Amino acid sequence: MKDESQVKITLPDGSERFYPKGVTALEIALSISEGLARNVIAAKVNNEVWDPTRQITEDSLVKLLTWNDEDGKATFWHSSAHLLAEALEALYPGIKFGTGPSIEKGFYYDVDLGGQTISQEDFPKIEAKMLELARQKNEYIRKPISKAEAIDYFTQKGDEYKLELIDGLEDGSITLYEQGSFTDLCRGPHIPNTGFIKAAKLTNIAGAYWRNKQENKMLTRIYGITFPKQKELEEYVTLMEEAKKRDHRRLGKELELFAFSEKVGQGLPLWLPKGAMLRERLQAFLSKAQSRAGYVPVITPHIGSKDLYVTSGHWDKYGKDSFQPIKTPNLDEEYMLKPMNCPHHCEIYKTSPRSYKDLPLRFSEFGTVYRYEQSGELHGLTRVRGFTQDDAHIFCRPDQVKEEFIRVIDLVLYVFKSLGFNDYSAQISLRDPNNKEKYIGKDEDWEKAESAIIEAAAERGLSTVTELGEAAFYGPKLDFMVRDALGRKWQLGTIQVDYQLPQRFQLEYTGSDNQKHRPVMIHRAPFGSMERFTAILIENTAGQFPLWLSPDQIAILPISEKFADYAEEVFFQLQDHDIRGFVDHRDEKIGRKIRDAEVTKVPFMLIVGEKEAAEGKLSVRRKGEGDLGSMTIEEFAAFFKKEASIA
Amino acid sequence: MKDESQVKITLPDGSERFYPKGVTALEIALSISEGLARNVIAAKVNNEVWDPTRQITEDSLVKLLTWNDEDGKATFWHSSAHLLAEALEALYPGIKFGTGPSIEKGFYYDVDLGGQTISQEDFPKIEAKMLELARQKNEYIRKPISKAEAIDYFTQKGDEYKLELIDGLEDGSITLYEQGSFTDLCRGPHIPNTGFIKAAKLTNIAGAYWRNKQENKMLTRIYGITFPKQKELEEYVTLMEEAKKRDHRRLGKELELFAFSEKVGQGLPLWLPKGAMLRERLQAFLSKAQSRAGYVPVITPHIGSKDLYVTSGHWDKYGKDSFQPIKTPNLDEEYMLKPMNCPHHCEIYKTSPRSYKDLPLRFSEFGTVYRYEQSGELHGLTRVRGFTQDDAHIFCRPDQVKEEFIRVIDLVLYVFKSLGFNDYSAQISLRDPNNKEKYIGKDEDWEKAESAIIEAAAERGLSTVTELGEAAFYGPKLDFMVRDALGRKWQLGTIQVDYQLPQRFQLEYTGSDNQKHRPVMIHRAPFGSMERFTAILIENTAGQFPLWLSPDQIAILPISEKFADYAEEVFFQLQDHDIRGFVDHRDEKIGRKIRDAEVTKVPFMLIVGEKEAAEGKLSVRRKGEGDLGSMTIEEFAAFFKKEASIA
Repeated sequence: MKDESQVKITLPDGSERFYPKGVTALEIALSISEGLARNVIAAKVNNEVWDPTRQITEDSLVKLLTWNDEDGKATFWHSSAHLLAEALEALYPGIKFGTGPSIEKGFYYDVDLGGQTISQEDFPKIEAKMLELARQKNEYIRKPISKAEAIDYFTQKGDEYKLELIDGLEDGSITLYEQGSFTDLCRGPHIPNTGFIKAAKLTNIAGAYWRNKQENKMLTRIYGITFPKQKELEEYVTLMEEAKKRDHRRLGKELELFAFSEKVGQGLPLWLPKGAMLRERLQAFLSKAQSRAGYVPVITPHIGSKDLYVTSGHWDKYGKDSFQPIKTPNLDEEYMLKPMNCPHHCEIYKTSPRSYKDLPLRFSEFGTVYRYEQSGELHGLTRVRGFTQDDAHIFCRPDQVKEEFIRVIDLVLYVFKSLGFNDYSAQISLRDPNNKEKYIGKDEDWEKAESAIIEAAAERGLSTVTELGEAAFYGPKLDFMVRDALGRKWQLGTIQVDYQLPQRFQLEYTGSDNQKHRPVMIHRAPFGSMERFTAILIENTAGQFPLWLSPDQIAILPISEKFADYAEEVFFQLQDHDIRGFVDHRDEKIGRKIRDAEVTKVPFMLIVGEKEAAEGKLSVRRKGEGDLGSMTIEEFAAFFKKEASIA
Repeated sequence: MKDESQVKITLPDGSERFYPKGVTALEIALSISEGLARNVIAAKVNNEVWDPTRQITEDSLVKLLTWNDEDGKATFWHSSAHLLAEALEALYPGIKFGTGPSIEKGFYYDVDLGGQTISQEDFPKIEAKMLELARQKNEYIRKPISKAEAIDYFTQKGDEYKLELIDGLEDGSITLYEQGSFTDLCRGPHIPNTGFIKAAKLTNIAGAYWRNKQENKMLTRIYGITFPKQKELEEYVTLMEEAKKRDHRRLGKELELFAFSEKVGQGLPLWLPKGAMLRERLQAFLSKAQSRAGYVPVITPHIGSKDLYVTSGHWDKYGKDSFQPIKTPNLDEEYMLKPMNCPHHCEIYKTSPRSYKDLPLRFSEFGTVYRYEQSGELHGLTRVRGFTQDDAHIFCRPDQVKEEFIRVIDLVLYVFKSLGFNDYSAQISLRDPNNKEKYIGKDEDWEKAESAIIEAAAERGLSTVTELGEAAFYGPKLDFMVRDALGRKWQLGTIQVDYQLPQRFQLEYTGSDNQKHRPVMIHRAPFGSMERFTAILIENTAGQFPLWLSPDQIAILPISEKFADYAEEVFFQLQDHDIRGFVDHRDEKIGRKIRDAEVTKVPFMLIVGEKEAAEGKLSVRRKGEGDLGSMTIEEFAAFFKKEASIA
């Protein structure tokens, strides 16, 4: 039992510890291990990111954040923006500061140079200054301050941008942060001191309107990135170069996989023949695995009446900022583009009375959904406005949740393995045990489902982290992360319990007790979406797809036009073995034909000339390996079949 | 050469004949053969249906219509509505008449009974009266009349409905038709005399608002159908009974193939698991055939910017009365649900520069499109608001049109044969040679394309009819008709040349002359749509699909729970052979399980009991054939594979 002078701290694994009131996250870390304390750069306190040096005065859920946590990195980079500002102020006295947030990879600061100029050539000088100040290990000091004092401070400093920001803030909520000689208006949080920052690189310079409004003054935006180790910066630079080569937007164009058209619309991909073939094979692969795992297909329309989405709650979530409702000549009738497939699947559940013996029901659909993303957020195939989920919804009894999780985990791991993602982990997101009233569904069902997920993951030997308070209000979930060939992490594959939709749609089944019960719904998508997964696959393989997925698996290369007929015969014979590709009928030298096939990453080149045609054979070359010798068509087909089998 | 007193008559086969000015269609028929003249009931003169007895005074395109033409039937039934009216007036003096058109199957007349009553029991009496009047062979006499005379006539008769109709007509365009003692305000056309009508049946009676407006008086609508032979009526009655049993809406529900949900929206089918499996197999079958025929898949979004459809012309066609544009938070940006896939495929064509060597390009997509049909017109899967076309667009050079037509004809005939439609014919729709200026595209291209289609059809030995003036303004076409098991005709499979979209989208290729040329576009869809084709397939097979298409191909029936494990083992082993079905684990007698499997039309029942489990065998029953004896699992798999191969 804790006494009055203590606070109860719940850690992410659910363990509880007691500390004196006013303890800091850094002190908690130190009480666990010195090594941990050295790495702690921020903390999540009741799901808000805090300075690790800030005092905790109430019972709290605490997660210590290091460089390995997204929120840890964000804090590190936000503090680095302050360091950049300090360096700029030292080098360019009199400049004024806009805002300086962290971004996905690094940070920026918007500055008003007041007539001075900065170009990329000045970056080394500024980077050196940042590192010099970093070595001083200046502490980031949080200073709560009244609005009047804040106005006073920045009036004296003459920084109109900060004054404009203060104007919008409420008295009592304002803080300054000071490190070394630099003080900034800032909500925080920050890392303990500048000494954590061991490597810095400025990456870009651009113009940006103050507060993103065109009528405002154009400021100068300086982008940078920092790391806690020099080696990490070097790795980052190498990674960026490699990533640029593998960028799926670039390879997608080079390999003719997909395209965009302004006339069709931004963020609406057109799958070109080779991309469509790749996608069809991915879908066929997953369909087959799902069929074996007891899923049944359904097909539903891409629109639904507005009423459907009012019932599902999606109208509230997607109604305002998304594609607007579709009116019809009949004023009573309005439709929406579907942002999710679940409401349709609930309606399919309702087409028949269901008994406990019918469950689980697993409805799968490659369902295309539409969501209006801001045009600035669109990015190749990873952020689009129309995408096809490899969706399925499992309707089961509460006592079946664990078994279903195990089956979905098995399916997801089979998918990862077959596609070459061997480095993966999972995050289990549970309720905040201190705020149970925030969540929908019965307490006992939550408890059962949460332990079902934990047990299922453990039984399948998954490497997991557990996050309390990260569950959605409608159910706990498990998310998979994979690491790609460049070491980048991608979230793939979600399994999400849902207590809400069965309630909103009044789904029922008759139990063995002859009473009506509510089924549990599980959402899951091993790929996530065909678009995003294809993008990741392109970047992971650099466009050199596994043989079974290659759009063109063979290129048949006749030495000259004389062997065009034999080449066509080979083509049709191999087509009968479901081997796909093309005949290169161009009037080019064979060397050129081989080179071109290599560039477009065709796995097998089959060269046919006088000897081959006479003997009914092929000269087989494999990309990256060279000559494999001569084979009959049947020999090659058998060899190919073995090579193309899915891992 | 014709002289001044003659008119040139062009027949549908393109042949030209000269007749005295004022010749009638009936006289033309008589000049060909007496038998033909006996069957002529109307004529199409310059694409307008005329009385066969009306004088032709100008050079004309003439098609003689018999009972076998849709327009012939429509004329026959419209004349029958007048005969019904004559019978009603004789039996119920003083009743007043609304309108009496022909409909898809028969005709109706709306009448104001003025206090008298008619019920289904009165039908025999009315039918008898109709036949009595028919036997009088009263001629239908066309009488052009002035508006004043028309008003005078119906005022005298006291028929306010006809007076209201006259009110909306222009003087000089009004005609009456008289047969026997009955005279009607009518635009015509009509059959020569009532004697053609040999069989009559009234089919229904219902209420209908005058002019379909709720604020108007409710009239009595009497439906009927007539035939030129008694035998045809008998066949019709039998057909109706059989059609009712095979109605795809009824079987779709019984076999759990598809459903509708009010919450999703009218006319938006939900494909249930068994229907989705059937559809997936149909799509896989066609995909494979298309891949072999040189098609490549593409995938495009279900929306496109409004601008895309303004360019394509679909905005003008579908903009007003269909699903309205989808607005976005960005006011400049509006999208439309796609009513057709062609604009997207044109944009894919434009993603690369194309050379004459690249053509033909054949882009295929199972593309779902949305069109707002009036709710009264929706009908099961045959008239829906969202449907998936088995679409493809061939972009080719003008000199490739014939070869492409031959290839598409081969594909369509392969589809028909594989799916058991062995009775088919085709209609070739060409330009009206007298109005060439109505059509878009170069004259020489039209000539080339039209003869290409005619030659292609002839080379493939298709039974065709050729219709002059039936081409769309943007290109000639060929439509396939199939006759189903009930002898009903369905239009399936269109091949349509299009000169318009390549022009609107400014599509180009570089010719061997290094100049820019415009490709020809061919639209084609062997099924038409997955929805409509599935409906036809259900009705044609009465739900007993070919083995390879059956949603459940096997039902494994354990004699008792003791053999449940063996049944599961059989299930998984057969699944490895891609044989799909289910295990009936219910606690029911084996006789009941067999009966239920037969009712749901499962082709094979595999019974497993003590002996089978011990010997690793199955007792195989085939629906409709009974016991096939005992087989090992492998023996059954091999037997099944042979039986399930596509014709």
